[in-house]
Amino acid sequence: MSSDQTFDRMWRDLLPIGRDSRTGGYRRFAWNAADLECRAWFREQALRRGLVYETDRNGNQWAWSGVPANSRSDVPVPDPSASWSPADARDAVVTGSHLDSVPDGGAFDGPLGVVSAFAAFDRLIARGTAFRRPFAIVNFGDEEGARFGVACVGSRLATGVLAADRARALRDGDGVALADAVAAAGHDPALLGADPELLGRIGCFVELHIEQGRALVDRDAPVGVASAIWPHGRWRFDFRGTADHAGTTRLEDRRDPMLTYATTVLAARKKARLAGALATFGKVSVEPNATNAIASLVRGWLDARAPEEDLLDDVVAAIAQAALERAARDGTHVDVDRESYTPVVEFAGPLRDRIARCLHDAPVLPTGAGHDAGILSAALPTAMVFVRNPTGVSHSPAESAEPSDCLAGVDALTTVLADLLANGGPLTPEEPTP
Amino acid sequence: MSSDQTFDRMWRDLLPIGRDSRTGGYRRFAWNAADLECRAWFREQALRRGLVYETDRNGNQWAWSGVPANSRSDVPVPDPSASWSPADARDAVVTGSHLDSVPDGGAFDGPLGVVSAFAAFDRLIARGTAFRRPFAIVNFGDEEGARFGVACVGSRLATGVLAADRARALRDGDGVALADAVAAAGHDPALLGADPELLGRIGCFVELHIEQGRALVDRDAPVGVASAIWPHGRWRFDFRGTADHAGTTRLEDRRDPMLTYATTVLAARKKARLAGALATFGKVSVEPNATNAIASLVRGWLDARAPEEDLLDDVVAAIAQAALERAARDGTHVDVDRESYTPVVEFAGPLRDRIARCLHDAPVLPTGAGHDAGILSAALPTAMVFVRNPTGVSHSPAESAEPSDCLAGVDALTTVLADLLANGGPLTPEEPTP
Repeated sequence: MSSDQTFDRMWRDLLPIGRDSRTGGYRRFAWNAADLECRAWFREQALRRGLVYETDRNGNQWAWSGVPANSRSDVPVPDPSASWSPADARDAVVTGSHLDSVPDGGAFDGPLGVVSAFAAFDRLIARGTAFRRPFAIVNFGDEEGARFGVACVGSRLATGVLAADRARALRDGDGVALADAVAAAGHDPALLGADPELLGRIGCFVELHIEQGRALVDRDAPVGVASAIWPHGRWRFDFRGTADHAGTTRLEDRRDPMLTYATTVLAARKKARLAGALATFGKVSVEPNATNAIASLVRGWLDARAPEEDLLDDVVAAIAQAALERAARDGTHVDVDRESYTPVVEFAGPLRDRIARCLHDAPVLPTGAGHDAGILSAALPTAMVFVRNPTGVSHSPAESAEPSDCLAGVDALTTVLADLLANGGPLTPEEPTP
Repeated sequence: MSSDQTFDRMWRDLLPIGRDSRTGGYRRFAWNAADLECRAWFREQALRRGLVYETDRNGNQWAWSGVPANSRSDVPVPDPSASWSPADARDAVVTGSHLDSVPDGGAFDGPLGVVSAFAAFDRLIARGTAFRRPFAIVNFGDEEGARFGVACVGSRLATGVLAADRARALRDGDGVALADAVAAAGHDPALLGADPELLGRIGCFVELHIEQGRALVDRDAPVGVASAIWPHGRWRFDFRGTADHAGTTRLEDRRDPMLTYATTVLAARKKARLAGALATFGKVSVEPNATNAIASLVRGWLDARAPEEDLLDDVVAAIAQAALERAARDGTHVDVDRESYTPVVEFAGPLRDRIARCLHDAPVLPTGAGHDAGILSAALPTAMVFVRNPTGVSHSPAESAEPSDCLAGVDALTTVLADLLANGGPLTPEEPTP
């Protein structure tokens, strides 16, 4: 099969996994059946190419190609008898993304980066590219946080910004602890935790991802390079009132938290608009959630993002203030809990510039979306390549990408990897572009 | 055991069933494990008293005591060899209520009427009361509609206002059809449907119920009699927009149905307040319901009630209009579907007046809550006795009643039943009070 045929075949194998027949969207949540099927697919792709497959202590999947110690071999070494092991890797070039989805997510958010990584590897091999550094393809676990409420769990654990005890105690909507879900999938939850040894092997990480917006459409470019990720976070708003009979309780006797929630939703939109930020309530849970009962608890999750951290703090504070003011009127209580927060990420300048030059001055643009590349940027040089999204729609079954743009993404990633793999030794900011 | 000891014992047996240990509220939903345990309890109470137990075609439970044909016996006949069967009953006096609950419901809404029915029967027996009509205690199934979204399913099916095909096709939140839930509980769903034969046996139905408001507190009375039930209904509002990434989609590119929903929640409160009506959004479901995704669908259920039908129609129309206006601004769509509607119920005047006189001019008051007695009022004379609720709170774990008020309720029901059972033959409006 040609590289392009392999590319198509990977998509054909992956596309049916975890797709809801009703909505057409994906339901690949950390450690659920669909996610495990995606993980089996990843392992098969690694083994089929003779790559060394391993799962790290946090359940992220790796497919390694080494440069054997004491060898001047310039090509990947799929020979299992080789003396090289992933633990020997230093200054490795790593690419990949994630395979999990938001509820009813699209086909490309995550998988495009993993499939393109394998496809780019195939092209490098087909071209006889010299590999002068170790190389790996990675599938980071639980990037979307759809099941346990915290995004980028795999990379946050590895870098230590998410404590293992906190991660193990996270629970999904059915009350299942993350530790139990991990164990049920055959992975030891006691292993979860910071993994400096693993991160110490990596020279740089390049994540290819579908764009989640229309900046590349506006610029008429099939691929672009990320400059920065806006600071962003999730805040849980608990609106508490008193459950009571909807058919008999006088309006003036009510303490209805749904009213406080509704006011806060509208305030979030207004405060974000005034600040040039983004604020969204997209997830809600209600107790007792009965048609004829006034709610006792409305729990709403705020996703907020802004170009600068101070501005983000101001927007969230203004939303919380609006909630508190309305709560005083409704006789309800509001508690606000910051569940996650990611400071602004400026991607490593030299790596970013090197990639942009490789790609013939592709557009460089910021994004509001969090990614594993953003989390890892605290520990090592990372970069992102975006592929054009004709509608800008993402986190939806309607997410789409043109086949020609996907192939342009593989081309771009191949070019970038060839460049990064062409020189051995540490990847330093001063390292000249070939 | 004395009647009061039996009363206490019934509560002790019933109280633990289906109680959530975290909230203290009940989760007795139609045909779930807790509901089946309540039903087993009912059957045991019937058999323990030598009453004739039967389940009707719609799954409602009955405990019958007959007056044998060709007999002048004036006492209940627990002798199974007696020639009487429930099918012989005419002009029966029936009391009872329901045992299911809303999610996190209280202990009294429903069970108080069933427990008090058995307790009143025990007192009538202990006093040697003459039974000159057949008598039955009933547990109507699925009164709250918590699982399948339609209230009073048992009585609506029996009277034919809910079609069997529609009932069978109702689905719970997990997608389980009512027909399958009924079958799993060992009842044949093919039997569901109008039951004029059963209703033809009944002369009158008196339902005792905890008050779901504070009118009796205000009037300093332990019991009262219902005058009417406000017209009320449930409307499902489907707000549809476009799922998209919360972190990357510009505010001006969004079609976010959560904003339309929030505006509609606030409009419902305002329109109800201006009209002297009640309007509540207490149940919501969101798709995809992810923190970092703009919702594609927000489904909210409106519970609305008003003193008059025209007024109710006006209020709901005004809320729908507010939703449509905001939807035009948000780029979303709104569909409104009336899921249930119960016209105003004026309880049978002569029966109501007779009961109020029996109870020494107990207060007569309207209610906004729907009940099986309201559904049955279309087919036969029905009445309701309310027991004081010190906080007015209902549909909540905090629902409460004083033991002395519960006993006053049993006293009242005993008095009413003794009066109604004292004369044989049809119960006509002209029938004089003894």
